[in-house]
Amino acid sequence: MRVGIFDRTIADLTARLSTPQGFLYVMNPATLDFTVETRARFFSLMNHKGLAILKGLPENCRIDSDREELFRQDSNFFYLTGVNEPDCWAVLDLTNKCYHLFMPRIPEDYKVWMTVLSLEEKNARYHPDVIHYTEELKTVVGELARGMTADSKVFVLNYMTHEQEAELALPATVAVDHAILREVLHESRVCKTPAEITIMREASRIASEGFKEVLRQLRPGMKEYELEALWLAESYKHGGPHAKLQAYNPICAAGKMSATLHYVDNNKVLNEGELFLLDAGNEFRNYAADITRSFPASGHFTPQQRVIYDIVLRVHKTIIEHMRPGVDWTDMHRLSMRVTAEGLLAAGFLKGTVDELLANHVVALFYMHGLGHQLGLDVHDVGGYPKGVERIQEPGIRSLRTRRILAPGMVLTVEPGIYFKDALLEPALHDEKYKRFLNEEKIREYWNFGGIRIEDDVLVTETGHESLTHVPKEAAEVEAFMLGARRH
Amino acid sequence: MRVGIFDRTIADLTARLSTPQGFLYVMNPATLDFTVETRARFFSLMNHKGLAILKGLPENCRIDSDREELFRQDSNFFYLTGVNEPDCWAVLDLTNKCYHLFMPRIPEDYKVWMTVLSLEEKNARYHPDVIHYTEELKTVVGELARGMTADSKVFVLNYMTHEQEAELALPATVAVDHAILREVLHESRVCKTPAEITIMREASRIASEGFKEVLRQLRPGMKEYELEALWLAESYKHGGPHAKLQAYNPICAAGKMSATLHYVDNNKVLNEGELFLLDAGNEFRNYAADITRSFPASGHFTPQQRVIYDIVLRVHKTIIEHMRPGVDWTDMHRLSMRVTAEGLLAAGFLKGTVDELLANHVVALFYMHGLGHQLGLDVHDVGGYPKGVERIQEPGIRSLRTRRILAPGMVLTVEPGIYFKDALLEPALHDEKYKRFLNEEKIREYWNFGGIRIEDDVLVTETGHESLTHVPKEAAEVEAFMLGARRH
Repeated sequence: MRVGIFDRTIADLTARLSTPQGFLYVMNPATLDFTVETRARFFSLMNHKGLAILKGLPENCRIDSDREELFRQDSNFFYLTGVNEPDCWAVLDLTNKCYHLFMPRIPEDYKVWMTVLSLEEKNARYHPDVIHYTEELKTVVGELARGMTADSKVFVLNYMTHEQEAELALPATVAVDHAILREVLHESRVCKTPAEITIMREASRIASEGFKEVLRQLRPGMKEYELEALWLAESYKHGGPHAKLQAYNPICAAGKMSATLHYVDNNKVLNEGELFLLDAGNEFRNYAADITRSFPASGHFTPQQRVIYDIVLRVHKTIIEHMRPGVDWTDMHRLSMRVTAEGLLAAGFLKGTVDELLANHVVALFYMHGLGHQLGLDVHDVGGYPKGVERIQEPGIRSLRTRRILAPGMVLTVEPGIYFKDALLEPALHDEKYKRFLNEEKIREYWNFGGIRIEDDVLVTETGHESLTHVPKEAAEVEAFMLGARRH
Repeated sequence: MRVGIFDRTIADLTARLSTPQGFLYVMNPATLDFTVETRARFFSLMNHKGLAILKGLPENCRIDSDREELFRQDSNFFYLTGVNEPDCWAVLDLTNKCYHLFMPRIPEDYKVWMTVLSLEEKNARYHPDVIHYTEELKTVVGELARGMTADSKVFVLNYMTHEQEAELALPATVAVDHAILREVLHESRVCKTPAEITIMREASRIASEGFKEVLRQLRPGMKEYELEALWLAESYKHGGPHAKLQAYNPICAAGKMSATLHYVDNNKVLNEGELFLLDAGNEFRNYAADITRSFPASGHFTPQQRVIYDIVLRVHKTIIEHMRPGVDWTDMHRLSMRVTAEGLLAAGFLKGTVDELLANHVVALFYMHGLGHQLGLDVHDVGGYPKGVERIQEPGIRSLRTRRILAPGMVLTVEPGIYFKDALLEPALHDEKYKRFLNEEKIREYWNFGGIRIEDDVLVTETGHESLTHVPKEAAEVEAFMLGARRH
């Protein structure tokens, strides 16, 4: 394994312990218990009496086929249980905080086909307060329901189906609430617990290693899908079985393609002199990483590329510097718009004053998405708009996925960008509303440029912030890393 | 690109043409038209009057999340349309064989986020007889339904939902059949058309290249998931964007793990002296490959391994030699049991006569799965048991996924195996029914051996067979290939 200045995160690998057999990829056993913290957090926010009952996802096959999809648990269920197996139920008694886990009985003869653990082995792995076979669900829930006081309810997720609810065979007298459980879980998931943060640090470390390997092997002439294949293999190799799934479909965009924000065709060649935009993140134990970098195919940024790269990097760094508890993410998006405006103005793409440019939504022609989103069990994590907070219906900021006030334990992506997108710019150049602010000649010089985005995963700490992402970011740093890799 | 005796399939690459831009991975344009053939075959088998109406799959997101899964069309819909995009409908007029394709209108401003083709561009890509926006579905279907004769019906798949059927707003007088369409499509898909065979040849070629790269890089000390990552990357790189999806979750099993038939934990280390069983296949244009090989970690089979390897290989080759139109696949399974019995008897694992061993189901203790299954748009392809043919309820053969008579155009896997599975053998060694046939001492020598399976994808031709798989198979060939790779 190479060790260099960008490998310093290897020091974080205390989380990766060897087993006596020396071969299993495991987390520090303490972090296996992450659901002790998440359940405690959930119980503290769930100020209601009764039972919370959740159904985990079933095995999922392709339609009209027995082809199984790789199993990935519902995030809400996983948050409370840590169980990534199909056909389970969880019942949380809100009064005494007792957690019952129900798992299916696997027939003995399945051992010919798959690894089968006994209920005792599953109990040791997931340590619920009580473990049961699923066949006991109705009986156990019936007993718990009979013990409920009159002011108690059963709380289920809004997407529990009628059929699933019928499996519970609840007495008709029991009131069922379909809204509160999801609201509380979403709120609970906004600020991560220490154990969750350990896992997310590892997710982003694995992704960082994958990005660095792509950076090492990047050459002009490679196809976008070859680079994607490399990324997929490297992130999996660095993370092991718990990092097999991607948090989202990778965006691997050469040159002009990088101006299409969710480009996933990934079938073009990366040419000499072009930039390669990679926006990708694995999951680790179902927690997402989400990183973007724009790398020069030839190992060196052209002066034209540096102009845009340096503006985006300035925005990116400015935002991270401002991140601390109490800061309003809406203000951060507005700040990112302002710094982008300053940069594009200074570089000669725009005309007028920064305030005019912002008031007339000119910047959103080049930076049309949100500054960043929450990250967690979902790549666009839940709870971005708490009750009473609405989206702002203006270009750019309307795509912002959260308007929260930052608090310790929140993890957000910081991903400003600048794009030259003909579908937006061509109409704008003919629009009286915009054209007086646009330097057409300069913009047309960049017509086939594509776009640049720089994205880290950033934790809000008690006193400020910690970036979980460790991939070269300064232009000189990127070039030195690529040069170093090509020398070897 | 290395060219060796195992790269001779590169001669088949006439199917992979360069574009004028020199960078797009494309099939020979002729094979893009594969649905001309599949629709003709379907129409010839669908001896009914009226309309066949199919709904393609929608975009699929994780529950309670906006995280999109990589889109993969329903196999039945794809078979008739070749369209791998969400939210489409197909209407086939069975009277005049007119094929209407309905595609959603994508708002212009989605161009900022994704590649958006116009209806004209989609028409040129998919060439239906008539293309429409989905919003015209009700009108078009209404007109076609009004033109239907009294003995006509509307045929839909049995898994079309009530909500989808309601979208059609069919007149109450129209009779709807929910069974025939699926039956006919399954029958239609059994024998592949020439264009389908071209695609499947390419699928298996890509998978073969991936296997060979794994074979080149295989070393003791590698983890199963590293080898899986390598396989995933190589099959994708060799196939490009049309080979991004796996036909099933790869089985990457080191040593003893290889006796668990659908092992997917993939988290062990491959040790010196162990075998590595890889059972994997990419899709190409949604058509599956499915290959298995058992490779020695150290580059050489031990004498102990050769005993089992040579028996399995003999079975595998014997079956392929027998494959031609008119042969009953049930007989082939029985033949594979017989040759396996002969081998295990001669090698001293079993006692008695071959006929006794077969009559007492002793071979199924070591070879407990079916000989092979049909392959096509699904890895376990449809139509294995036509009406009137039932499963045989005996060990081993009860798992056989098809009992068809072979016919030209059928593609089947040939995948015999021998496994030492404690969960089966330990009880058998204590079972009066079996123990007189078992040489316990010899079997215990192989207790931690795992298993060996050798699997090719084989096309039934007019006069015999053609294996679509080109991966070293003879023990000496495997060893020479590994030695060659390690020398470089």
